[in-house]
Amino acid sequence: MFVNMRACFLDLDDPSLLDFGDIRIVLVQTTHPGNIGAAARAMKNMGLKQLYLVKPRDYPSIVAIARASSALDILDNAVVTETLAEAISDCGLVIGTSARQRGMPVPMLDADECAEKAMAARHKNKVALVFGREDSGLSNEELLMCHYHVQLPTNPEYSSLNVASAVIVLAYELRKRLLKIESGVEESEKIKEEGWDQELATAAEMDHFLTHLEKVMTEIGFHNPEAPRQLMPRMRRLYNRIHPDQMEIKMLRGMLSLTEKVLSKVKKPSS
Amino acid sequence: MFVNMRACFLDLDDPSLLDFGDIRIVLVQTTHPGNIGAAARAMKNMGLKQLYLVKPRDYPSIVAIARASSALDILDNAVVTETLAEAISDCGLVIGTSARQRGMPVPMLDADECAEKAMAARHKNKVALVFGREDSGLSNEELLMCHYHVQLPTNPEYSSLNVASAVIVLAYELRKRLLKIESGVEESEKIKEEGWDQELATAAEMDHFLTHLEKVMTEIGFHNPEAPRQLMPRMRRLYNRIHPDQMEIKMLRGMLSLTEKVLSKVKKPSS
Repeated sequence: MFVNMRACFLDLDDPSLLDFGDIRIVLVQTTHPGNIGAAARAMKNMGLKQLYLVKPRDYPSIVAIARASSALDILDNAVVTETLAEAISDCGLVIGTSARQRGMPVPMLDADECAEKAMAARHKNKVALVFGREDSGLSNEELLMCHYHVQLPTNPEYSSLNVASAVIVLAYELRKRLLKIESGVEESEKIKEEGWDQELATAAEMDHFLTHLEKVMTEIGFHNPEAPRQLMPRMRRLYNRIHPDQMEIKMLRGMLSLTEKVLSKVKKPSS
Repeated sequence: MFVNMRACFLDLDDPSLLDFGDIRIVLVQTTHPGNIGAAARAMKNMGLKQLYLVKPRDYPSIVAIARASSALDILDNAVVTETLAEAISDCGLVIGTSARQRGMPVPMLDADECAEKAMAARHKNKVALVFGREDSGLSNEELLMCHYHVQLPTNPEYSSLNVASAVIVLAYELRKRLLKIESGVEESEKIKEEGWDQELATAAEMDHFLTHLEKVMTEIGFHNPEAPRQLMPRMRRLYNRIHPDQMEIKMLRGMLSLTEKVLSKVKKPSS
């Protein structure tokens, strides 16, 4: 990663430095509408605006409205989707909340680090903070759609946080970070953000790449979709860790296309 | 303040370093029982145990129980009092939440500093974190009973935090601090705590002192209870800022007693 010299000229009067850019809160299959309202209120308290609801069980709801208090604008503008993939498809950074490491581990952040990553990425990319179901959190498949997991420090004897409580804590850490930037304590912020000159690949672009990869791996006989073992989840985790940017994902796709071209030539003579 | 040399020999295996000691959460005149339940759950999530309820409007309540989820032990052991003074009378450090400075300003902390002060004081003293009413927070009189105010960073356009949300954020900062101590990052913690060799004066001792002071000030003609102006609130704020320890409060009381003795002698000859 190289440092873009442009970035060294900080402009703290730039109002875009002092907002939350494109950070969204995504609540997955929330059961109780009261939690949706409480999350909306917590978001507005901290200055966040974009709420996505993946298949909420009971919504719209008068209970959500009551608990949202004065944050009705957040509910009014909330986007409802059928799947997590839809809610994050345009996002370049996806961070999921997880009470504990499950299945395949993914890089883990604490709440400060989550705020740091989200704030550094928020202008060049759309960023999603994803919160799971009240009873069971995020599924293993959903957790693998995230570049990072964030874990809040809790009492090991009772770690099950209310979903709106988890939202307020992460939103509070975002606001703390915003105030640090505002006060100039985190001048390096702008450099961190500008240090990468390309937009990150979105979740949808990563999905297309992985589909392409699976096709090629199958064609070359490395992958058998009938007996997949854990190959594709492992590939997803691996490439999400790389967190490729737009140019890199195009390079990766290009390599796959070339491999396919070579394969087609190999096949032709033998057929 | 002098440093007690004993304290320089850290014993991080000391289990008392790794708990919340005598930190209590005090909720003043909470209107909605759901908020009491949610606060209890938030406390248990972060490992806090002691809940005080000052004149809750609707309690005990099935709604509180439902929202407390698995934190019923916190509700079962909650102490209900008639006034804030009762709930904090044995406390040596009292920190009140405040959305903004009102009336006479009192030293203001942010949430990190609140956690730092509470954790440093928690073994030698009983510590109270006080949360006000849903609609109007703490009264000016209640705010003056606190040594410090703590303010959470919020969106200036909508700063009214749900009371349970405020509890979870401060409890989260306490837990972060506990984990830092546990990991040895905050080894200086023990020194900070031990650096003061005396217990702090409790809120009740401060009240007794202030009552005594008012009596003497009246006797010497400095104070007219019929036209009090803001004298006593100002005295309370002043002595709370000093935050005297047990020995100091005894000295202060001793001076008042001696003043009274002199006064009685002055009066006798003239009568």
